[in-house]
Amino acid sequence: MAGTLETFRRIVGKDWVFTGEQMVSYRDPYPVTNDDTRYRAHAAVAPASTEEVQEIVKAANAHGVPLWPVSRGKNFAYGGAAPVLSGSVVLDLSRMNRILEVNEKFGYALVEPGVSYFDLYNYIQSKGLKLWLDVPDPGWGSVMGNALDHGVGYTPYGDHFMMQCGMEVVLANGEVVRTGMGAMPGNNTWQLFKYGFGPYVDGIFSQSNFGVVTKMGIWLMPEPAGYKPYMITFDREEDVAEVIEILRPLRLNNVIQNAATIRSLVLDAAITATKSQYYSGTGPIPDSVARKIMADQQIGMWNFCGALYGPPPVADALWSVIRDAFAKVPGAKFYFEEDRKRRPDILIHRAETMRGVPKLTEFNFLNWAGGGGHIGFSPVSPTTGTDAMKQYRMVSDRVREYGFDYMGLLAIGFRELHHVTVIVYDKTNPDERARLDKVFNLLVQEAAAEGYGEYRTHIQYMDAIAGTYKWNDNALWKMHQAIKDALDPKGILAPGKSGIWPKHLREGRQP
Amino acid sequence: MAGTLETFRRIVGKDWVFTGEQMVSYRDPYPVTNDDTRYRAHAAVAPASTEEVQEIVKAANAHGVPLWPVSRGKNFAYGGAAPVLSGSVVLDLSRMNRILEVNEKFGYALVEPGVSYFDLYNYIQSKGLKLWLDVPDPGWGSVMGNALDHGVGYTPYGDHFMMQCGMEVVLANGEVVRTGMGAMPGNNTWQLFKYGFGPYVDGIFSQSNFGVVTKMGIWLMPEPAGYKPYMITFDREEDVAEVIEILRPLRLNNVIQNAATIRSLVLDAAITATKSQYYSGTGPIPDSVARKIMADQQIGMWNFCGALYGPPPVADALWSVIRDAFAKVPGAKFYFEEDRKRRPDILIHRAETMRGVPKLTEFNFLNWAGGGGHIGFSPVSPTTGTDAMKQYRMVSDRVREYGFDYMGLLAIGFRELHHVTVIVYDKTNPDERARLDKVFNLLVQEAAAEGYGEYRTHIQYMDAIAGTYKWNDNALWKMHQAIKDALDPKGILAPGKSGIWPKHLREGRQP
Repeated sequence: MAGTLETFRRIVGKDWVFTGEQMVSYRDPYPVTNDDTRYRAHAAVAPASTEEVQEIVKAANAHGVPLWPVSRGKNFAYGGAAPVLSGSVVLDLSRMNRILEVNEKFGYALVEPGVSYFDLYNYIQSKGLKLWLDVPDPGWGSVMGNALDHGVGYTPYGDHFMMQCGMEVVLANGEVVRTGMGAMPGNNTWQLFKYGFGPYVDGIFSQSNFGVVTKMGIWLMPEPAGYKPYMITFDREEDVAEVIEILRPLRLNNVIQNAATIRSLVLDAAITATKSQYYSGTGPIPDSVARKIMADQQIGMWNFCGALYGPPPVADALWSVIRDAFAKVPGAKFYFEEDRKRRPDILIHRAETMRGVPKLTEFNFLNWAGGGGHIGFSPVSPTTGTDAMKQYRMVSDRVREYGFDYMGLLAIGFRELHHVTVIVYDKTNPDERARLDKVFNLLVQEAAAEGYGEYRTHIQYMDAIAGTYKWNDNALWKMHQAIKDALDPKGILAPGKSGIWPKHLREGRQP
Repeated sequence: MAGTLETFRRIVGKDWVFTGEQMVSYRDPYPVTNDDTRYRAHAAVAPASTEEVQEIVKAANAHGVPLWPVSRGKNFAYGGAAPVLSGSVVLDLSRMNRILEVNEKFGYALVEPGVSYFDLYNYIQSKGLKLWLDVPDPGWGSVMGNALDHGVGYTPYGDHFMMQCGMEVVLANGEVVRTGMGAMPGNNTWQLFKYGFGPYVDGIFSQSNFGVVTKMGIWLMPEPAGYKPYMITFDREEDVAEVIEILRPLRLNNVIQNAATIRSLVLDAAITATKSQYYSGTGPIPDSVARKIMADQQIGMWNFCGALYGPPPVADALWSVIRDAFAKVPGAKFYFEEDRKRRPDILIHRAETMRGVPKLTEFNFLNWAGGGGHIGFSPVSPTTGTDAMKQYRMVSDRVREYGFDYMGLLAIGFRELHHVTVIVYDKTNPDERARLDKVFNLLVQEAAAEGYGEYRTHIQYMDAIAGTYKWNDNALWKMHQAIKDALDPKGILAPGKSGIWPKHLREGRQP
């Protein structure tokens, strides 16, 4: 390894290879395991260009050293910058942070991996461009990294991978490819048309270890002619079933235009308050406390945050349909921004997110109970009231049984729900970590037994979740392995990512 | 080969293996070559199930026989059911025509390859489901085949591959994989969520030869609360530049909601009339004749067909923006259906297409000049007036120079134009074929020199067009080859499709 690091230093300069104490920032900030030898990178190397990435990959191949590429390493709650395989060298792409183009006329940006939402937002503001980002909650995250992990946001452009257009990728052999129209020299549509000619390959570089993406195009929404965020609160736990049934046709018909969310009481309370303000006991809050919080914070047991985008006549027409539909739910309350006087306030916060302002406010929930750790459990389900209720019961009962508060949200995709449950835990407490690990594995297996699969996960659960996608004797993962062996025969790129292991590490690990 | 066909007969039954005279229907209906030995299949085999496809593929591997999969074989103007490599056996999937599910609640269908737009439309009508298809012009084509070839239609769901969700694929080794959520046994979201967990692989089975898709999910649009098609005509050739500049922001802002088209004079005239009604000379029509047609048919030199989808208040708001924007173009004329009295009429025809009614009416253009052959040249360009005009000049000058009428349309994607030029020719005339071949090759090279690439092509030009996507020494096609070799080492699936050749046939063919 020493020789490899010397080679890396020759490529990137000695200041950009990290080892020893410097590796603290590459550890999982929210570890679940109590085994300190797991998920530990040996070193990190931070290139400044595609050419340096090519050289590093070639050297890693020559030396048989595994690399773990990260864009900004801010994929917190899913492992941060830490690798699945201990001993890997983090390929830290955060120095490659050039915004190569922002095109107002066509609504797109071309970025390197290290560009964060904050970076891109500030750039757009500084130039006065009439373009909106779509942001997930962690504003410090990588625009590219989030799209590659199938992340979601909250505007009409909420499906980030759908909005991706054109990539540059360094393959494990050091070759660079450009996808789509980028493969045509002198083209003028790399960020305008996704498919190019022949197979559309971009998807295989998402949630995978088949290449290192070094440039990516992302479509940006033109500033709409109007914007009106709103919140509808619902008082009863069981309302979620009816609410989802009302939502499905509205979303499918694009009356609800954005990737809107239904958020649970404690999740919303945790943004603007702490648990100790309301409850000094241990374990989940009792119902009486929940009622107190609802009254105090002007929120419901469930809170639907959406927004209207477009000129007033269009927005008004949509709103009348939405209001009439939800008025059927007993106790539903409707709010616009001007109806919320308290500060901090959840709608005022979400109103910024739903117009693409990057923030970190959402992570106030880490202070809810203290302890500072959190992890996301994110199964996908059909948009039905029955599924929403079943999901809610399955997950909330289990997390409460294991002593955690239920903090969940249902993100409304075109035809499916992402049910994202955030479990906040004391990351310094080995018992709590063990308890979390136990309940997480249980959640994965129980969800799979009902046909619900996770769309994304923490490094510790990649194998377990890949193992639930096992139709026809794991046929899909066998195909992933065949592609892996073809594109990366020595298995140097991100071994274990999404449960895809290179040949020499597969034994005993096969799902 | 005789032994292989015997094996195929054992698998599918003797009635479903075709040879000799039966092969006429598997020939390219619109050949360009004068070499009768090219693009000729040796035989065809028509399985009835995924299991039979698996058996056929295994046998083809054992015997080293190349297969050319087609869904309905109606990809006319791009080669029909004919293979790139003569001697291939057509894997005719048209018997696999089950509509496995149409789900009104979620708006999707799950279909086999042999399901045509007519089939699916009739099924939906017969059940009275409130769902709309998005159809391309050939209503007899395969829903799956069109999406896999990156086909486009004319409603808000016009990007067919974007609307695809979940596949079942038989790999060259005979294994079956299901993609996305389909890889989870007992899942309930295969047609609801595209990405599943891990790499998103569906795209590599489009325009490729990496597997045989045997089932595919496609999203269907819920019947909108209102529908109002319109046509705007423009009198002058040069108007196209201004029209496109007006269109770009309207499309990007979703004021124009559908994959609308700007169609050229002769293309529209050819749907409702024949050339001989207006002109008895040879070669392209002169300008005076063009003027006569315009007056007679109530059309312009360019005709923009669009539609408003949604409840009247929304449609009215959108229309006022659209009308005001185009009123700036001198001579622009606006029509709704009720303004068109003549029959047949182009708006009345397109009005059906823009609400997803499958038809074959568009192919009236084959009767324009007689001769019955046509081919599509389809470069992608940015949505700018400059590019539209440059494209129009480049292509129309060349086709006229070579004695053909210009019949083109600009399909308005989210951020790009598909400039589709239909060249109608006398397929029985060897000289005209040779002339067509010459101008087509010229168009491909001239477009590439300006950075315009085709999104789809006829079997005869797959190598030529793949060769224009050659950035970094053909890096992308080298990667395609690596995947091909991994998934289909014997190269039995569709050799030469999209310029991807198996190892043993690559020599001398490398782009």
